[in-house]
Amino acid sequence: MEETKGLNIAVVGATGAVGQQMIQTLESRELPIKKITFLSSARSAGKKLLFKGKEVEVQEAKPESFEGIDIALFSAGGSISKELAPEAVKRGAIVVDNTSAYRMDEQVPLVVPEVNEEDLRHHNGIIANPNCSTIQMVVALEPIRKAYGLNKIIVSTYQAVSGAGAAAINELREQSRDLLDNQEIKPAILPVKGDKKHYQIAFNVIPQIDTFQDNGFTYEEMKMINETKKIMHMPELHVAATCVRLPVETGHSESVYVETSAASITAADIKTLLSDAPGVVLQDDPENQIYPMPSDAVGKTGVFVGRIRKDLDKDNGFHLWVVSDNLLKGAAWNSVQIAESLLKLGLVTVK
Amino acid sequence: MEETKGLNIAVVGATGAVGQQMIQTLESRELPIKKITFLSSARSAGKKLLFKGKEVEVQEAKPESFEGIDIALFSAGGSISKELAPEAVKRGAIVVDNTSAYRMDEQVPLVVPEVNEEDLRHHNGIIANPNCSTIQMVVALEPIRKAYGLNKIIVSTYQAVSGAGAAAINELREQSRDLLDNQEIKPAILPVKGDKKHYQIAFNVIPQIDTFQDNGFTYEEMKMINETKKIMHMPELHVAATCVRLPVETGHSESVYVETSAASITAADIKTLLSDAPGVVLQDDPENQIYPMPSDAVGKTGVFVGRIRKDLDKDNGFHLWVVSDNLLKGAAWNSVQIAESLLKLGLVTVK
Repeated sequence: MEETKGLNIAVVGATGAVGQQMIQTLESRELPIKKITFLSSARSAGKKLLFKGKEVEVQEAKPESFEGIDIALFSAGGSISKELAPEAVKRGAIVVDNTSAYRMDEQVPLVVPEVNEEDLRHHNGIIANPNCSTIQMVVALEPIRKAYGLNKIIVSTYQAVSGAGAAAINELREQSRDLLDNQEIKPAILPVKGDKKHYQIAFNVIPQIDTFQDNGFTYEEMKMINETKKIMHMPELHVAATCVRLPVETGHSESVYVETSAASITAADIKTLLSDAPGVVLQDDPENQIYPMPSDAVGKTGVFVGRIRKDLDKDNGFHLWVVSDNLLKGAAWNSVQIAESLLKLGLVTVK
Repeated sequence: MEETKGLNIAVVGATGAVGQQMIQTLESRELPIKKITFLSSARSAGKKLLFKGKEVEVQEAKPESFEGIDIALFSAGGSISKELAPEAVKRGAIVVDNTSAYRMDEQVPLVVPEVNEEDLRHHNGIIANPNCSTIQMVVALEPIRKAYGLNKIIVSTYQAVSGAGAAAINELREQSRDLLDNQEIKPAILPVKGDKKHYQIAFNVIPQIDTFQDNGFTYEEMKMINETKKIMHMPELHVAATCVRLPVETGHSESVYVETSAASITAADIKTLLSDAPGVVLQDDPENQIYPMPSDAVGKTGVFVGRIRKDLDKDNGFHLWVVSDNLLKGAAWNSVQIAESLLKLGLVTVK
């Protein structure tokens, strides 16, 4: 139900994979909403979506669409954000942008509420939502950084196809079925829509997410490296990433190695710390085969951490396994959470 | 065709996933074979298998089965190896054992021919074939160790289900089909046959291979750690591993971080080194999206290496992506290669 007092919220990219999750998340949270506006490209305009049981027609996103909007959640691709986010800000809206368009902009806070909520106070109209694989990692590591300091992170990811959109999910399903039926397959989307080559994803592993930079790292890997430093305010932190796409629909997993500044910490210390950390759900009981898996994490907002163990050689080295729903904490939920934080901090007011 | 002069070879576990690959590998190689003997448990005895177009009946493996055998390739599980390998040796056979039964035995060389072929000279009847995930990693890293020294290895694996046997392949296929058809699934094999719990593998990721040790590492992880040190004769080498099972039928992938002893090496140096290294196939051209993937590696004997890049912070740190067919170089092919090395080094003679 829309309320008589509340915020005017716009969702840009309402018909996409993340947009759909944003709508569901907004429905289930207690953020007071006076009016909801669904925006999209001209192609999807006119579609009707339900919000709290009421039909809402999707409109084409234009500069004027943002008149009277308090918070606009953008998830319609970087070029739309670059074009329309400034227009929304000009009209008084605060933009929470889920694309990579503004993440490394020094004027734009890059926020994971469990880690750097206070950075919201310095916003200039646009707030960036980090990359999905970055978000879950920093939620798991921030408590360790705070308690023991961090020197080094080496992460290898196990990423689901839904990070590449709804079409990639369909590609995985159809390819899986075709291969099981011994049919020929014609990869057309993964690893990167619009890149030169496309490869089989069903029953395969592709060590490429996003395109390559000259240094041999992909943009996805550089996002994890640069965004982690920005969110944690640690430009000198050593971070390395290898990002890999798997035949999983939703739920990113990460094998993370960290070195703390403090020495002589035990795995038990880290477990105690994470058992009570914001946004973290500890799932770590090897004897009973309890550890995080994507199949368990889908549809949940938490960041699941397990397999915590001390390195056998390095006194300040630890290994962790981190899993989260890349569409929720990795995207929609983190964006809505930012909206809730804006309200909590008095940076937006209910009229 | 069996030859008039040649070796008497026995394959123990001939009807299993690795046994089948051993037979195919023996058929395609030039190892002179006078007589082939297929052995198995009582359950599979009596089955008929083809070898170079001729039918061979599988016999139950007993101590007497090894009379007159020159080389016995074992891949029928650790308990069979523990029981029958000494019996085979007693009867004059050299055993190449593909289970974990003898790998860490100080009297038993653990051999990857590209790395430590000379260790074969010190065998006492039994030679151990390393774990699949270890083999491909040491083939990729040995040239680096030789040229620049190695201080540290941190590996995260992306392992195929065929490492858990033919039943695990069937489980992946059936689960995939059932999930695509929205049917209920009943995991019964993975992650570890006989362990307390079984989990969905189709469209999922399971961070457990083999059972857990008290230190929080799995036996699979400890195999990678301990076997690498033994094969490379580097008891002090720092090695850490996280082993993960994926919905892939065959072909293990590995995200490997290494630190060399020498400094100021470039990624180009490592690429040049690996472009001409034994057993290694370099697939590293990011601009043209060339990198190793399991779908390309299946059925091939090489160890494919790509995504080679220098760490952004550590002058002696490098990242690599290593893929190989876990049933071939990871098992059958490495075992047959050991047999070929035995002949080449004069440790077995053709009668």
